[in-house]
Amino acid sequence: MRTHYAVGLDFGTNSVRALVVSLKDGKECGSGVWNYAHGEAGIILESEKPHLARQHPEDYTEGIKQSVECALKEASQNKEFARDSIIGIGVDTTGSTPLPVDDRGEPLAFQAKYENNPHAFAWLWKDHTSHAEAEEITEAAAKLRPHYLKKCGGAYSSEWLWSKLLNCCRAAPEVVKDAHTWVEIADWIPAILTGTSAPAKIKRNICAAGHKAMFNPEWGGYPDVEFLGELDPALAQIRQTLPDQAVDISQAVGGLTEEWAKELGLNPGIAVAAGAFDAHLGAVGSGISPGTLVKIMGTSTCDMMVAPMDTKLPDIPGLCGIVPGSILPDCFGLEAGQSAVGDIYNWFVNHIQPGGPEKGSHEELTEGAELLSPGESGLLGLDWHNGNRTVLVDQRLTGLLIGMNLHTTPSEIYRALIESTAFGARMIMQRFEEYGNEVNEVINCGGIAMKNPLVMQIHADVTGKEMKVAQSSQTCALGAAMAGAVAAGAEAGGYDDFYEAQKNMTGVREKSYKPDPENAKVYNRLFGLYSRLHDIYGRKDYESNLYDVMKELLALSEEQRTGQGK
Amino acid sequence: MRTHYAVGLDFGTNSVRALVVSLKDGKECGSGVWNYAHGEAGIILESEKPHLARQHPEDYTEGIKQSVECALKEASQNKEFARDSIIGIGVDTTGSTPLPVDDRGEPLAFQAKYENNPHAFAWLWKDHTSHAEAEEITEAAAKLRPHYLKKCGGAYSSEWLWSKLLNCCRAAPEVVKDAHTWVEIADWIPAILTGTSAPAKIKRNICAAGHKAMFNPEWGGYPDVEFLGELDPALAQIRQTLPDQAVDISQAVGGLTEEWAKELGLNPGIAVAAGAFDAHLGAVGSGISPGTLVKIMGTSTCDMMVAPMDTKLPDIPGLCGIVPGSILPDCFGLEAGQSAVGDIYNWFVNHIQPGGPEKGSHEELTEGAELLSPGESGLLGLDWHNGNRTVLVDQRLTGLLIGMNLHTTPSEIYRALIESTAFGARMIMQRFEEYGNEVNEVINCGGIAMKNPLVMQIHADVTGKEMKVAQSSQTCALGAAMAGAVAAGAEAGGYDDFYEAQKNMTGVREKSYKPDPENAKVYNRLFGLYSRLHDIYGRKDYESNLYDVMKELLALSEEQRTGQGK
Repeated sequence: MRTHYAVGLDFGTNSVRALVVSLKDGKECGSGVWNYAHGEAGIILESEKPHLARQHPEDYTEGIKQSVECALKEASQNKEFARDSIIGIGVDTTGSTPLPVDDRGEPLAFQAKYENNPHAFAWLWKDHTSHAEAEEITEAAAKLRPHYLKKCGGAYSSEWLWSKLLNCCRAAPEVVKDAHTWVEIADWIPAILTGTSAPAKIKRNICAAGHKAMFNPEWGGYPDVEFLGELDPALAQIRQTLPDQAVDISQAVGGLTEEWAKELGLNPGIAVAAGAFDAHLGAVGSGISPGTLVKIMGTSTCDMMVAPMDTKLPDIPGLCGIVPGSILPDCFGLEAGQSAVGDIYNWFVNHIQPGGPEKGSHEELTEGAELLSPGESGLLGLDWHNGNRTVLVDQRLTGLLIGMNLHTTPSEIYRALIESTAFGARMIMQRFEEYGNEVNEVINCGGIAMKNPLVMQIHADVTGKEMKVAQSSQTCALGAAMAGAVAAGAEAGGYDDFYEAQKNMTGVREKSYKPDPENAKVYNRLFGLYSRLHDIYGRKDYESNLYDVMKELLALSEEQRTGQGK
Repeated sequence: MRTHYAVGLDFGTNSVRALVVSLKDGKECGSGVWNYAHGEAGIILESEKPHLARQHPEDYTEGIKQSVECALKEASQNKEFARDSIIGIGVDTTGSTPLPVDDRGEPLAFQAKYENNPHAFAWLWKDHTSHAEAEEITEAAAKLRPHYLKKCGGAYSSEWLWSKLLNCCRAAPEVVKDAHTWVEIADWIPAILTGTSAPAKIKRNICAAGHKAMFNPEWGGYPDVEFLGELDPALAQIRQTLPDQAVDISQAVGGLTEEWAKELGLNPGIAVAAGAFDAHLGAVGSGISPGTLVKIMGTSTCDMMVAPMDTKLPDIPGLCGIVPGSILPDCFGLEAGQSAVGDIYNWFVNHIQPGGPEKGSHEELTEGAELLSPGESGLLGLDWHNGNRTVLVDQRLTGLLIGMNLHTTPSEIYRALIESTAFGARMIMQRFEEYGNEVNEVINCGGIAMKNPLVMQIHADVTGKEMKVAQSSQTCALGAAMAGAVAAGAEAGGYDDFYEAQKNMTGVREKSYKPDPENAKVYNRLFGLYSRLHDIYGRKDYESNLYDVMKELLALSEEQRTGQGK
């Protein structure tokens, strides 16, 4: 039988990667990476607005061409491979990263009028200019539509769609006026590849809509016009350009256009799957299924689970989102995460390190940390240096370290920081399980999973669960390619569902990390103490007079930084 | 009128200093330092016993000769000065630093049999081998003589006399058997200078006896024979070699012997004052009087006040000691302190520093810390890296830092550490004042007071009190010389009381640190938060379920270090 292939396109924060994958066994036979050309490493910044982060959509179109060409070139060195055996394309992107487009679906950024106006560019996921608007939306929803908040952990984020659009209404009303609609790049890229980018035709994916735009079939899709109108009439107008249905990654949004087919050297008409976010397709590429937690371990983490659609799933407090079909089409997608993990280790190494880059490297600190037994340092930390996403959903929390003495070493602190993130991970697992989602298996992917055995072992010891590592080092692009294969369907040489695709195309590495029972016992004791600190400093409903300490310190800090206190 | 002089002998941890001081104006006209010859920087250590710290008494006798010779040489360059215008000698030492002597008053360490046995040497103040014995004594006193504990903050320390003697009973019973008695070096040095070192003649000073040996006139002096016998019969025997009276620094223990006079080139018969501890004579040399708090700021602090003897002074919980005549003869001496201050800054610079010794120096961190406003960093710390001496009297406490984020810098942490020690200082002042000892003036001495303006300014801003700095940079040796002058008396050209001596011989520097009202306001808010953390983590009687967190972390750490947990 002839081997078929699919292409996964993975649009990251700084670059795009194309991956050519064999549908027979998931083998990655060609890969191409193109670094975005605009701004600093692909991000347009403004020195006066430190929270602003935008991207130019030209980088996406150019990125498709460059990365696919490179990936196909590499794949072609493989004798078995032929370009016309590629039957589908899938796309994952960062998000929420929305883009204003005109009535033909062209980005405003392509107009001469807007070529230097970052408000007309794509608003990158990590743009944090919309903090006040997020609070405004949360308050309005709490008052007018409390059920909206229950599916997104109780608070609407500044990183999400409506916060960004509301901010643009104020910061650049002319952009909002000139835009016919706004599109997540996860939708815009499949749309341009299939010639469906005209506003009336463009399909919206359930992953972006459900996790970042308060879309839920329970209330008929996106938030209603009346509610959005309360926030700003322009939002109500944008709402009217949005469909009431969303698509999932098993669905093709169309076939590859003649033009793109020629440009890329692929067959026209091959299926292009609906897009989704990187973490969600990463979970697919890691082999997610009910009972399996996929942890994407990097500077922060995403912790993903799925639950069959017929599960009586309660709202789970603290989860970023519970969205039907957002990961696997026939399951609820459950998204949790930690706001900072690798970022905390990097903070210590890059900012507080002993002896400069040479002496205080991750490697050197790891060497020292490996020699320690759990609990030996007497240190215990809270991993809230960037707030707490799950389960507290509170950005206004900060780090804490307890137990220092005059002999405390950097390696001891480094290990305590790692342990604190593992305790945070256990908190999330506990929350999943408390609400009926048993964690039978944990598969890790992302940079830390592949490169940092100490972190993985500590996670195993702290959680008492075996830490497996996904076979692929490109699980997002692999998941995207799998979406292309399923969108194409079995008849075309692809798959009819993701379970079949996963069986053949995903797996875990031989090396896994099993909990050491002695260490696990000690960590159980430490987790008891961590939980106490967690609840006392993090839970408003908890009886303690320490809940407001971090808040007051933050308030004081802001007063002093802005000079309001004087 | 002819100018008279006195010599102050200051026996420190690593060296002895002799200071020749003009009694007219306190001018220091000659100084000599001699570094102890034995062990490492004067301290005899044993690698298998990390808590052991001893000194060889030969260093004291040799130290007198060398340092005085050097100081006199320097003084002699002064035309006004003549050796025979020296009318008295005072002595301050570390303590509790006791020494076993034979029936002639000779140190056992001088016998060939014991020349290599550190148990027969002086047990240096910071010898911490007697931890278990301290607990045993505290428990016994709590049961049998609770009033003993009330004058020493509720717990007997491992650094103090009876803990060390009880430890020696177990560790080296032959030494205890061969010793006729034990003598604090603060008593032994004046005794040898005056030929009164025979056990029956030797005078015991109230400062050492009262603060470290549970001596109090209220119960007739040292602890009673029956109580000590319960701990060990040998202790009861030592008790019987001790007098029921103690002397204060206004009293001469005798006149300088012909032998020593010849050796030092001084007049025989000049007054040698009773000894006292360095911190106490440092307070005298800084100008202590009722209402004036003297802070000796170094790696740790001593915070000293005096209260007139006719004051109805209640027991003050948390104070290391309340002893009549231990600082000024006609006042109660009140001693408090912080277990680590400069040590915490040094820990951060030497162990956790960024960029190695060059980039992460005290100077560089101070430069960064000076640019910050109070509260700006959002950080808050507890200064318990070495436990808490006052007011919690608990060594089993540890450091805490709260408020870190991913942008927290080393300078911010450094400043937060300084602030935490200033909050600890304010706690102590508050305790003094709560029990009727108004702090009308604060005089600082010691290395930090003279060298670190940032630390001093933060202390002023945090406490809301002006921080003055003692004129002398050798307040301990100056205080000792003043004791020599008072012991000699006005008739001999000295003084009849310390107030007269202080008026002429002590003062404060022009540069002082006044609180900035805006900063003080912010620090009041931060101190509120500090107090909450202080009580919740530090007070057993306080309603909280965090009191045991530090204890459990310490217990776990000890289990893991000793392998008992496995």
